Amino acid sequence: MPEISVRGLQMSESPIRKLTPLAEDAKKRGVKVYHLNIGQPDLPTPQCGRDALKNINGTVMEYSPSQGYASYRGKLCGFYKKSDISLDADDIIITAGGSEAVLFAFMACLNPGDEVILPEPAYANYMTFAISAGATVRPIPTSIEEGFALPKVEKFEELINERTKAIMICNPNNPTGYLYTHKEMEQIRDIVKKYDLYLISDEVYREYNYTGLPYISAMHLEGIEQNTIMIDSVSKRYSECGIRIGALITKNEEVRKTVMKFCQARLSPPLIGQIVAEASLDAPEEYYREVYDEYVERRKCLIDGLNNIPGVYSPVPMGAFYTVAKLPVDNADKFCRWCLTDFQYEGETVMIAPASGFYITPGAGIDQVRIAYVLKREELQRALTVLQKALEQYPGRKISE
Amino acid sequence: MPEISVRGLQMSESPIRKLTPLAEDAKKRGVKVYHLNIGQPDLPTPQCGRDALKNINGTVMEYSPSQGYASYRGKLCGFYKKSDISLDADDIIITAGGSEAVLFAFMACLNPGDEVILPEPAYANYMTFAISAGATVRPIPTSIEEGFALPKVEKFEELINERTKAIMICNPNNPTGYLYTHKEMEQIRDIVKKYDLYLISDEVYREYNYTGLPYISAMHLEGIEQNTIMIDSVSKRYSECGIRIGALITKNEEVRKTVMKFCQARLSPPLIGQIVAEASLDAPEEYYREVYDEYVERRKCLIDGLNNIPGVYSPVPMGAFYTVAKLPVDNADKFCRWCLTDFQYEGETVMIAPASGFYITPGAGIDQVRIAYVLKREELQRALTVLQKALEQYPGRKISE
Repeated sequence: MPEISVRGLQMSESPIRKLTPLAEDAKKRGVKVYHLNIGQPDLPTPQCGRDALKNINGTVMEYSPSQGYASYRGKLCGFYKKSDISLDADDIIITAGGSEAVLFAFMACLNPGDEVILPEPAYANYMTFAISAGATVRPIPTSIEEGFALPKVEKFEELINERTKAIMICNPNNPTGYLYTHKEMEQIRDIVKKYDLYLISDEVYREYNYTGLPYISAMHLEGIEQNTIMIDSVSKRYSECGIRIGALITKNEEVRKTVMKFCQARLSPPLIGQIVAEASLDAPEEYYREVYDEYVERRKCLIDGLNNIPGVYSPVPMGAFYTVAKLPVDNADKFCRWCLTDFQYEGETVMIAPASGFYITPGAGIDQVRIAYVLKREELQRALTVLQKALEQYPGRKISE
Repeated sequence: MPEISVRGLQMSESPIRKLTPLAEDAKKRGVKVYHLNIGQPDLPTPQCGRDALKNINGTVMEYSPSQGYASYRGKLCGFYKKSDISLDADDIIITAGGSEAVLFAFMACLNPGDEVILPEPAYANYMTFAISAGATVRPIPTSIEEGFALPKVEKFEELINERTKAIMICNPNNPTGYLYTHKEMEQIRDIVKKYDLYLISDEVYREYNYTGLPYISAMHLEGIEQNTIMIDSVSKRYSECGIRIGALITKNEEVRKTVMKFCQARLSPPLIGQIVAEASLDAPEEYYREVYDEYVERRKCLIDGLNNIPGVYSPVPMGAFYTVAKLPVDNADKFCRWCLTDFQYEGETVMIAPASGFYITPGAGIDQVRIAYVLKREELQRALTVLQKALEQYPGRKISE
């Protein structure tokens, strides 16, 4: 039997995936599982997006352009304009989700052996895409004690060498919910400029900014327009994870031309998804507000609830719909497994993602978990009670000093 | 400005893409362009597939499983059973078109520097996917004089060395329309077995087999079940190129496990496309027959027409909906450009793909073109007349000896 590729072997299954069969087993035993582990919003897709499906009347489901429909790209310019980002339709390349945009950005910009600096904890699939491109991820640690704030410039400079090619950020952050401050974004800009790096900025949670201040996009940073690549997606904005529509956006024509070669090879982004995504741009202001208000309420419910459990600590996340919390346990991987295999409280348990899968540095975040607030408040409330009971009964509980 | 990746620079734009703006210009001048260049079927998507769109009633367009819906994979087993291929639903991984399946097969099986043997001319994007994986394509030449038949075993063995990891075939072939014979498939099996290689078999045109004999899939070859990876897609079968639904199918569990890591990184294949593809499996026999009969008629019309033009030669393709023909010209790239820039006959011209883009060996196929028969017969007929006139007037015409 011929061998598997080395890159295939390097890639690891996420710790969440490993828990999935355990959750299935728990359900088979009749245990109700509260899913605090997922990033799939439960809120409805805008009605106008869903209606678009009913109005598709062509007889041939043909290829769309490799760059994505011009009409959709044109309308997106108006959408970004509202956030003070001036784009030309040609600056936008439509991709199969934000995932493909990250993969193509890495493929176009990074050579095998090149390094990309990434604040950790980080979205685990960035590591997978880096392996696909043969690039090396250099983590820059952030800590729960400092609320996952960005480290000082010097910490970046310690990592920068002749192989450093890019800085990648996710803002607001998955898994921490951290939102970079104005000052931090300026700091990133200065480093990017000084060392002439790419800045790849994943902004798929941009709508979920709880500061009351306007969102600061990488596209707003002056003087690095040719270095910046923005990743976007409709998945979280419109509860449209399934349709696989994202975008790679950059003012750098060379990068776009190169990314387009990868786009042409895969022929086109999903046709019907684009139709739904384009129609969703007509969602009324009310839709955005309702979704936003719902997350604001859930966030309060979750963070208050967590910090109310003895020994648990969560910073207040200023964006996205996640938080990374510290639990009074010896090992969060073990605890999360145990919740699914050996615990139940009144016939219920919780599924939580251990944070270890989001860290590159071995052993980091061992007592941390990522919790998503994509459940209704009553369910969140109840899940918190179940989590508290689990922590009380867990044999590996660590008594705080 | 930071540099573009070397792999990005290595990838070349296809010669068809380069012609597209010229065709646009011709249309702006009021010239009608017959598109003999495209692989997008003009025949309708099955009604049951289109109806499925109207019946989607969920409120959240959520992620589908990374492997694809179990219901769809289960139904596909029944579909392949009809072609005498016994599969388990777990053998099937649903991908974003056949393109993603090829990319993931390369990523999972080939290391940077590994070699894949590929009969040329070949589908140009295989080269792009190989570059993405860092692998090297070693072309094994086939010739129009021999009707693009597979070269003898010895020719393969000349190319095989310790870096050789896979043989890739496209059967029926794009661009030649060649269908591998029983004997050729056995020859491939023997080589694959002897050298323990992967056999990656792109069978997206499997329905278009004009021999009257059952189609021979790589999945039928005995003794290499652990080596074989089949690529499939609904694009050509159901005129569903736009929905981006393909499949990677293999009995090799290690390969599947590795491919699944790439699948999990991109989260899921398109949701709505899967719903359409699954519904399309209910297309009546009549649908397949009508589509098949139409291509049979068009093939006759095209091949007879081509061979009737002085100096033109096309073998009779036994599969797919393409042929590679030899034209009496100095350089087919120049001729194809000239048709769009300097020629018209009664206000009409043709757009044809130069075959050079399908060859890896520099200079090969310089007087050849790929012609697709995805036009109605009357249009094909008329396009042939226009082509004949173009060949008569083309300044670079080569008088046959």
